[in-house]
Amino acid sequence: MEASLQHSDIACSVWKRVRAERPLVHNITNHVVMNFTANALLAAGASPAMVHAPEESGEFVALSRSLVVNIGTLDDAFIEGMKTAVRAAHRLEKPWVLDPVGIGATAYRRKAVWKLMKFRPQVLRGNASEIIAMSGAAAAGQGVDSGDGSESALAAAAMLAREADCVVAVTGETDYVVTEDGVTAIRGGHALSQSVTGTGCATTALVGACLAVAPPREAAIAALALMKAAAEDAATHARGPGSFAVALMDSIAALAAAA
Amino acid sequence: MEASLQHSDIACSVWKRVRAERPLVHNITNHVVMNFTANALLAAGASPAMVHAPEESGEFVALSRSLVVNIGTLDDAFIEGMKTAVRAAHRLEKPWVLDPVGIGATAYRRKAVWKLMKFRPQVLRGNASEIIAMSGAAAAGQGVDSGDGSESALAAAAMLAREADCVVAVTGETDYVVTEDGVTAIRGGHALSQSVTGTGCATTALVGACLAVAPPREAAIAALALMKAAAEDAATHARGPGSFAVALMDSIAALAAAA
Amino acid sequence: MEASLQHSDIACSVWKRVRAERPLVHNITNHVVMNFTANALLAAGASPAMVHAPEESGEFVALSRSLVVNIGTLDDAFIEGMKTAVRAAHRLEKPWVLDPVGIGATAYRRKAVWKLMKFRPQVLRGNASEIIAMSGAAAAGQGVDSGDGSESALAAAAMLAREADCVVAVTGETDYVVTEDGVTAIRGGHALSQSVTGTGCATTALVGACLAVAPPREAAIAALALMKAAAEDAATHARGPGSFAVALMDSIAALAAAA
Repeated sequence: MEASLQHSDIACSVWKRVRAERPLVHNITNHVVMNFTANALLAAGASPAMVHAPEESGEFVALSRSLVVNIGTLDDAFIEGMKTAVRAAHRLEKPWVLDPVGIGATAYRRKAVWKLMKFRPQVLRGNASEIIAMSGAAAAGQGVDSGDGSESALAAAAMLAREADCVVAVTGETDYVVTEDGVTAIRGGHALSQSVTGTGCATTALVGACLAVAPPREAAIAALALMKAAAEDAATHARGPGSFAVALMDSIAALAAAA
Repeated sequence: MEASLQHSDIACSVWKRVRAERPLVHNITNHVVMNFTANALLAAGASPAMVHAPEESGEFVALSRSLVVNIGTLDDAFIEGMKTAVRAAHRLEKPWVLDPVGIGATAYRRKAVWKLMKFRPQVLRGNASEIIAMSGAAAAGQGVDSGDGSESALAAAAMLAREADCVVAVTGETDYVVTEDGVTAIRGGHALSQSVTGTGCATTALVGACLAVAPPREAAIAALALMKAAAEDAATHARGPGSFAVALMDSIAALAAAA
Repeated sequence: MEASLQHSDIACSVWKRVRAERPLVHNITNHVVMNFTANALLAAGASPAMVHAPEESGEFVALSRSLVVNIGTLDDAFIEGMKTAVRAAHRLEKPWVLDPVGIGATAYRRKAVWKLMKFRPQVLRGNASEIIAMSGAAAAGQGVDSGDGSESALAAAAMLAREADCVVAVTGETDYVVTEDGVTAIRGGHALSQSVTGTGCATTALVGACLAVAPPREAAIAALALMKAAAEDAATHARGPGSFAVALMDSIAALAAAA
């Protein structure tokens, strides 16, 4: 396999721990990507569960090692489940990651995200348009796709990292992991990732898996590095976006196992 | 690539515009096919979003170029979101397409569909049993699969096209695009399409993408022609229904890019 | 094809009937696996439908040959739909199968399952941890994955089979079909099944398809034998979990067609 993990000291040590400990990762994510996300987590060596009802989403946090919240196909029922879960995560000091899908699109999304943010995710993962929208500046995204290059979100990411006291992962042609103290760039990947739904959401879930075993900055770097390397490797097995999506799972599994 | 688009003058011009403009297509569709549908739209060059909550589904219509409504896994919450969205589409003159999945099965589906029909979709896409059921005649379908050949629905489709003032697309072994003024047949495709869930729903979504850039009849022809050609091409890469579904995405991407 | 169906007299006769009759199988299942499950049923030759709203889930039972209930991504709305459906199945004497996904995790799941159990499923299908949790003993599962070997659940399964008067299918490295009168082991399969979400859920759905045409014990054996053989065959076409999931559908189709 030619594709290899960048920041390989961090990434290898994090993925080794994930594979050794097989952490239970609790996901409340959108309907479009639930299957793809669960398969990405399984491929990487984690144990995913999708549990959204408010009657059990708090109880389930206590059983899990980390939590992933993604607002893709939002509705009031899911918002209730998310609020219950993030409140429990905050109280129980379980790490969690937030994916503010399409936050720039509607007031409903903005309001939901800011309610969740009160319970302080360790990592925020979005595309450039989403990160810019969260910072309050005008962004060029349409729907759930980014209309901005990832570097254009660096100032917004730095502001968010400081004000919300979390690590911000901005993904795009180049990925950036932004903390109060600095920026780490992760290059590579493949353009076919833009033609498959849920690659960003799956990246967020991989951050969640890594948060179970590592601090936020290391978790974000390890997850983004795995996704970039897997995309590069998968492209060599693909005829188009369908076979790329399949190969991506094979490559995630191979790279995580080789870490 | 041997498979080629029928009605290629219309289809090529429509798909070129989709790829050039990358329209945001708003989908309220069923849980079974959300992932497959989003991937079909991405493969074809559109930008899909899935937004169903009534609190934001109307607002989202204003941001989008077209709307796709599919009643596959219906419930009251989704019906509310659909009603809000189609009302907005009607008011804002955004084109939309309706897929009346399994309408013959229950009174609940019939009632929901006729409420949505008041807001006048530009295109109605169904299998023969669904189109016949919508016309009020007895149909042979079971569940969501058609028990009727597509040509048997031509009279029902013509009646619906006239009375509901929309284009009716009946898909099956041969596809038909039916308007008040006549019928266009689209042949080809592959039997494996019947062994993969959501090929009909994805076709409806592709109609939605084309509606963003073209009038209803042309949009329906372009979408059906792409799906027929993609199925033929995909079958040459398939060992069975699993690899066919994957190859279908690759073939949609290749054919749309070559248009 | 080298993989072949175990218990081939039973399995072949059941799958031949499924393919000849193409039964409509009603599913109320979780969001993660809806697509995968529908595709597994289509590959095997059944006609799947996913209908969960309580307003139509009872009416739909009357149209269907069998019912599959899976509590994976549970919430109150789905519980209502499930209760309506299983009540109708019980009254109309339609066979149904229950998959108590992650029952050990929360009180909410336990309560929901025991309400459903009153309407007496013909088959209960779970992993070892789920079957042990249902028997009231302590189980080692985390989330939805089993932490117990399937043989460790045999006593629990026998107790459940007797007390709930149903066939219990425990799947794992070796699968067991347990009745009041004895145990049938089904060996084979492949470890990659553990790296793909929904292989257990799809197995449950295949039991549902077989229940449409055969008694519970034969249905469970035929479904488990097909899944074991398909996994073995699929592994020979796979580079990792992504291509394994795709190949599994191809292999289910090929093996069911050859039955």
